[in-house]
Formats: sequence, C-alpha cells, structure tokens
Amino acid sequence: MKGRFITVEGGEGVGKTTNINYIESLIKEKNKSLITTREPGGTPLAEAVRGLLLDPVHRGMHPDCELLLMFAARAEHLDKVIRPALERGDWVLCDRFTDATYAYQGYGRGLSLERIAELEQLVQGGLRPDLTLLLDVPVEIGMERAGNRSDPDRFEQENLEFFERIRQGYLSRARVEPERFAVIDAGQELEAVQSGIRQALERLLDD
Amino acid sequence: MKGRFITVEGGEGVGKTTNINYIESLIKEKNKSLITTREPGGTPLAEAVRGLLLDPVHRGMHPDCELLLMFAARAEHLDKVIRPALERGDWVLCDRFTDATYAYQGYGRGLSLERIAELEQLVQGGLRPDLTLLLDVPVEIGMERAGNRSDPDRFEQENLEFFERIRQGYLSRARVEPERFAVIDAGQELEAVQSGIRQALERLLDD
Repeated sequence: MKGRFITVEGGEGVGKTTNINYIESLIKEKNKSLITTREPGGTPLAEAVRGLLLDPVHRGMHPDCELLLMFAARAEHLDKVIRPALERGDWVLCDRFTDATYAYQGYGRGLSLERIAELEQLVQGGLRPDLTLLLDVPVEIGMERAGNRSDPDRFEQENLEFFERIRQGYLSRARVEPERFAVIDAGQELEAVQSGIRQALERLLDD
Repeated sequence: MKGRFITVEGGEGVGKTTNINYIESLIKEKNKSLITTREPGGTPLAEAVRGLLLDPVHRGMHPDCELLLMFAARAEHLDKVIRPALERGDWVLCDRFTDATYAYQGYGRGLSLERIAELEQLVQGGLRPDLTLLLDVPVEIGMERAGNRSDPDRFEQENLEFFERIRQGYLSRARVEPERFAVIDAGQELEAVQSGIRQALERLLDD
C-alpha cells in the first residue's frame, strides 16, 4: 500500500505539538511505518533555511524573499524526505506545509495567491496532502497560549491582525477543499479535540 | 540623472575580480557615485543564503532548491541595495546577476528556462541591467586559472561539461540580447581586455 501524507496546520498556540503526538500514537497503533517531520525544515539544509526565516535579526526580510525561502526549503524536504518516504509506502506526518505558505505569506503578508500557486506547482507538481488537519482556535486564545513561551521568533513577533488574517486564510482554504481538510475546534477540552482528530483520521487508517 | 545598473558575468577563472576593479576605476573617473556588489549576496541575509549555496556540505542540494535560494537572495538584494541605489541615482556594478541563474541553473543544471523567466518576472518585475559585460574565455583556460585557488566551493567542484554548458548558455543569451550584452574576449592580453571594456562602457559613461 502506498504511503499517506498528512499535514497539521494552524496558527500560533493551537496545540500542534500535543496533537501531533496524539496523531502519531493513532497511526502507530495501526502498525504503519511513520515519519514525523516539519516545515520549514526537515533536512539539514532546510533547517538552516528555517533558521534564517525565524531569526528576529532578519526582521526587515522582503516578503518575496520569505516566500522563496519557504519553497526552497520545501523543494529540498520533498526531495530528501517526503517523496522517498511516500514511495517506500511510509506515512508522513508533517507539522505545517504549503497551506501555511498560503496562510502566512499569502493572507498574512498579502502576497498574491496566484504566485504562491505557481510556486506550489513548480516545486510540488501534483503532490498534495491526503489529509490536512486544521487546528483552529480564536486568535486571542492562541496568542495567550503561545505568549507563555520565551523569545518569540520573527513570526511570533507579528501583531493580532496578522494572525487574524492567517486564521481566516486557513478557514477559507478549508472551505474550498472540504474533502482534504478536517477543521478541528482546538479550543475545546483536549478529549473533544482528540475525538475530532480520531474521526478525521478514521477514513485513512481503515483504508 | 537616474542610476545605471551594470552586471559582470562569466564562468570560473574569467578574471572577474581584476576586471571589476578596472570597471570601478572607469566609472569613478567620471565622478559617478557607485556601489559595487555581488550575487548571490550583497546583504547580510543574502550572504547567509550564499553561504548555504556554496557550502560543499550541501552537495546533494535539489536543483529547484538551488534555483529558489538564488532568487530568494536576489529579492532581498534588490529590495535592500540595488533598487534604493538606482532610485538615488547611484550606479550599481554587480558581480553576477540573473544571467548567471540562466547560465548555471538553466544551461548548467538543465532547469527549464521558462521557469527561470517566471521567477525573474516575479522577483524583478521589469528591472534588467542596462549593460552586461560577459567575460568569455574557453573553459579549459578558465578552469586552469580558477584551479589555482584552494578549497573549491560547491559549484567549482563541478566538471568540465557543466562549465562548457554554462559558457554556451551565456553566449547564447548574449546573441539574443546584443543591445544589452558586450562580450569581451577575456583570453586576450589584459590591455586588450581593458580596451574592450572601455569601449563597452563609453556609451553609458558619456550619457
């Protein structure tokens, strides 16, 4: 059986780490061989690019540069990690992927969504996630949760309006592709969140 | 008067450093305010990207990643250095620019020239150099000259065929845009090379 490509998306403080751990446990329960990775990053070179992207010293980075660095890291990640894993039949669980580029660089920074689509086509060809779990919470709650972490990175230093645009961007993408997206209300109690995740994964896991 | 944008192109060992010094002296003689810069690089962030691009540790870098890193660095360089200088009326002399991307990533790596043209349009809009000096020498001679340097970078480690494709790529671009390009036979004696450079610059300098 061919591998499955699952991405987890959401803004700051939506609980990605906890929920990714839970998703991993569900997939491993079914004895699937699984790779968990993240974007930007996932290879030594792509992690070095991530370092440039997050470093607050590059506060004035031009949005086109940010966008191209994201896709440069992605090209490397796809070539070295994601495609080989899927070809081997492994499952790939990725903490953020191209939907984050649409949400952050497109809706957040105001870059053209068509340009992003062109780069997506250039770098990915036809490859898209099989399932995207969008963890959604109101921005104020997410920022409050994320705010407890020390040393905000270059993105975390942005303002409330930026993250509101990102949230709406994610939700709008989910509306356009309801088959691929599962929107999880991540503001609920953990048990309810996990139940939502379980339901969303069932379709793939029972394949 | 508006600034002028001059680029110097060529493969390995064509004598860029010596000739760029000479071009600088010719422009400064005319009391033009001049910025000399290079690609990939020219800003702290773009120089960090250059570091990733040249590091032999990243030998297996996917060509799409290489291409996108080049344009990411370029977007930053244009935004922080080149456009502001030209808008102030300064002259900009740049050691390699987008013709190098066509030559190295297009002709050298075999990436689609149309894709490169799309990225060029995305990052530069209508901005093109006013004059491009292509320093041309047969590959064997250039490699012999360059070979005397220690610790070859990730590009310098490529083989003869790679550099032959690059040379032919540069020459083919020069044939298509004879108005913008001046092809200098950089295999001649230094005095003849400098005379060729002087002639090519006259048109701009006497404006």
